[in-house]
Amino acid sequence: MPPDEFRAHGHDSVDWAAEFFAHPERWPVQSRNRPGDVRRQLPASPPEGPERMEDILADFRRVIVPGITHWNHPGFLAYFAISGSGPAVLGEFLASALSPNGMVWRASPAVAELDEVVCDWLRQLLGLPPDFRGLLYDYASTATTAALAVAREAVPGLEARELGLAARPGVSALRVYCSEHAHSSVEKAALLLGIGRRNVVKVPAVGGVGGMDAGALARAVAADRRAGHTPVAVVATAGCTPTGAIDPLAAVAALCRREGLWRHVDGAYGFMFGLVPELRGAFAGIELADSIVTNPHKILYCPLECSALFVRRPEAFRSTFSLVPPYLRTDDVGVTNYNDYGPQLSRRFRSLKLWFVLRYFGRRGLVARLREHVRLARLFAGWVEAAGGFELVQLPTLSTLCFRAHPEGVSDGPGLDRFNRLLLEAVNADGDVFLTPTELAGRFAIRLSVGHIRTSEHEVARAWELLRDGCARLAQQLRTGATALSAS
Amino acid sequence: MPPDEFRAHGHDSVDWAAEFFAHPERWPVQSRNRPGDVRRQLPASPPEGPERMEDILADFRRVIVPGITHWNHPGFLAYFAISGSGPAVLGEFLASALSPNGMVWRASPAVAELDEVVCDWLRQLLGLPPDFRGLLYDYASTATTAALAVAREAVPGLEARELGLAARPGVSALRVYCSEHAHSSVEKAALLLGIGRRNVVKVPAVGGVGGMDAGALARAVAADRRAGHTPVAVVATAGCTPTGAIDPLAAVAALCRREGLWRHVDGAYGFMFGLVPELRGAFAGIELADSIVTNPHKILYCPLECSALFVRRPEAFRSTFSLVPPYLRTDDVGVTNYNDYGPQLSRRFRSLKLWFVLRYFGRRGLVARLREHVRLARLFAGWVEAAGGFELVQLPTLSTLCFRAHPEGVSDGPGLDRFNRLLLEAVNADGDVFLTPTELAGRFAIRLSVGHIRTSEHEVARAWELLRDGCARLAQQLRTGATALSAS
Repeated sequence: MPPDEFRAHGHDSVDWAAEFFAHPERWPVQSRNRPGDVRRQLPASPPEGPERMEDILADFRRVIVPGITHWNHPGFLAYFAISGSGPAVLGEFLASALSPNGMVWRASPAVAELDEVVCDWLRQLLGLPPDFRGLLYDYASTATTAALAVAREAVPGLEARELGLAARPGVSALRVYCSEHAHSSVEKAALLLGIGRRNVVKVPAVGGVGGMDAGALARAVAADRRAGHTPVAVVATAGCTPTGAIDPLAAVAALCRREGLWRHVDGAYGFMFGLVPELRGAFAGIELADSIVTNPHKILYCPLECSALFVRRPEAFRSTFSLVPPYLRTDDVGVTNYNDYGPQLSRRFRSLKLWFVLRYFGRRGLVARLREHVRLARLFAGWVEAAGGFELVQLPTLSTLCFRAHPEGVSDGPGLDRFNRLLLEAVNADGDVFLTPTELAGRFAIRLSVGHIRTSEHEVARAWELLRDGCARLAQQLRTGATALSAS
Repeated sequence: MPPDEFRAHGHDSVDWAAEFFAHPERWPVQSRNRPGDVRRQLPASPPEGPERMEDILADFRRVIVPGITHWNHPGFLAYFAISGSGPAVLGEFLASALSPNGMVWRASPAVAELDEVVCDWLRQLLGLPPDFRGLLYDYASTATTAALAVAREAVPGLEARELGLAARPGVSALRVYCSEHAHSSVEKAALLLGIGRRNVVKVPAVGGVGGMDAGALARAVAADRRAGHTPVAVVATAGCTPTGAIDPLAAVAALCRREGLWRHVDGAYGFMFGLVPELRGAFAGIELADSIVTNPHKILYCPLECSALFVRRPEAFRSTFSLVPPYLRTDDVGVTNYNDYGPQLSRRFRSLKLWFVLRYFGRRGLVARLREHVRLARLFAGWVEAAGGFELVQLPTLSTLCFRAHPEGVSDGPGLDRFNRLLLEAVNADGDVFLTPTELAGRFAIRLSVGHIRTSEHEVARAWELLRDGCARLAQQLRTGATALSAS
């Protein structure tokens, strides 16, 4: 593409994005597409000759954008938010214009060194001790897999890296422990690493919605030892996906130390709130971990992907993952070749957007925004608690909470689950906000998580208005027989 | 960032990139940085308050850009090229402005469906039969790991996903086979999956530089069966990293069928040349594979990351990887939830840039560019062959070749290796081009790979000019005693 053409379409694209940022209300948060809507509008085969960029961009706006569920929208209260903040999007743009591959230092020195600097800035912001070193991965799934690979390697006499796990007659089943509310990435890591899903021991959460029960964890480890299994690691979660709950980090760390287990903390969502001084106490004991993952692409205003793993013994990652073929051998001294520290060889330039974000907002700006997410979640929880016809499943520890409608006349059970499912669909159909469901102790619940950089009281209040109105309308339809709660 | 501020800095960033594309000659391809140069110019701690975007962008130009080795430069003849072409960079920009996470269909329908459409377009361009389905991963490392995880799952009676590999008394060592020149990602996958590095059997290349010796492969499999091991998969490479060689795909496929082994093809670099009709014959037999990976982020003008895995039995990937926690459960029918098909949960919107590229250039435009890469590599090989004082290690199969200087009076051995190392350093120090070393049969070689979208005869000729001049100068220095070839 000639540079002048790139300039013109680049300016148009920037203008489109600026308009999208200025007027999110013009787009429904959740896409209204039905399955196949995008596919049906596109040709079945690629074009033979070139097409004009104007036409391609027009199709982007016409076909693609309506099929996007807008994560980068202040009304996004679903899953865990991802914000493409202004500085981060500019960082991504410049990184892709340069297109470096930071696989080894020499392949782009600035990529390796900015990773290092920015990770250490983030470590300081999170209040972690200086013996933690940060490694940037793509997703927390990869970071947790890497940590558990290193934990597996630390099992005495195993040598999984070299010998593998099969055909090792003396080796017993490797066991990993986590909360019943831990992220599915723990099971995926166990599956990948040859540990096996069934060797991930799910420890009950206190009261079904709180942190992992430390006593139950200790009993599970003891029972496994008696059964001849090999406990390897505990994954504590700081901010569980369904509830936002934080596992008892200090108790888990103490148990791990006694038992010689790897202490990994999945703080992908939650630990970023460690930036906020008055919230730091909730993470007491996290500094005793062997590895901690937290995602700038969740609650630090970066688009996908950028996940930071803080580790105490980077050399253990290097000895688990390093393979240096001749075409990657370099003799540079005092540098880090980051492909030696994880499963993938190639590496995007992830730190540029994070550097832009940390500088553009500064510590104070980030703390203020994170604090506001928590304030909004607590405000919403207060509304739910105060209202009739709703029940709060749990108070928000951070910025995530679960609740359900419980109107008079609908008894607890499948009927109430269905009522809430219909309510959630009605709220999301409006387009101003997007919330997602979860299940706690086998019961359907509505989940709200605040984390988009531009979410304000306006969106949270709108969600509450839609919920109350939807609840009243559904209850009315039930009374008139227009809706039934029998299984669909 | 207020939309107007975003617009202004966005335009400035686009203009900077357009200037970079227009005048690559202003930047040396290989960064001249020494270890620590970037780190030393940055503060040790993050800023307390916000900084101005102007200042951040100025630092980007002043501190970061000189530390970038310019992959997106026509003089980049190193590793395997990655091009951030104009349409792809615009696609990345828009994807990051939207910041969707395509983990499940509902989380952004257009992400899932565009992935599907674009993968099928690419399948058609590559001439693969319609029973192949494409899955987009980040890197070939991940795609190969996913394929080998599925291969491991296909071993009868193993149930690695559920039970893991340890403590399975009846299970013998799992074995994976590949060329001695296969990519390090095969070993990394084996390491991750609990197969173990030592169970990756490296099969000799024909003549030390060609494709895998199919007879040696058959013998290795037979020997392993006699030893009681369990052969699982063969990874054939279509475009080996050191040499660009293509393994005998049909022979490997036939053996795998006979032996019941998974047939994976690593065509991360090479198979993209399957778009060129007259080169397709080199890949005969690839259509018999169970899985084939090829990277749009290498030779299809997309920046990192976008790696396409074509598979015959997508349901095997689903049954290996699918885990559906309650917060991801959806009841959409006729859709694909792509997180069910691989190790990671979150998914960047990778297909947008690829869609832009396929449309902007069209099939004809892509074929013409790929053909030109091959023409340039062959042209260069011809110069090397015709010149005195150089030897071609192997003819380029695709667009990659290895050669070395061999001036009169320097005998083969460590001295010649050192001569070539010094020559390569001198060529790269100039800044117009960047080439990388490799090692073949224990001997140092210079490697040149053409794959950047804007590389023309100009850059290849300049590389040759620098090599000849450098060689003459070094030879002269040797004669005068200004340089010695004893070990450094």
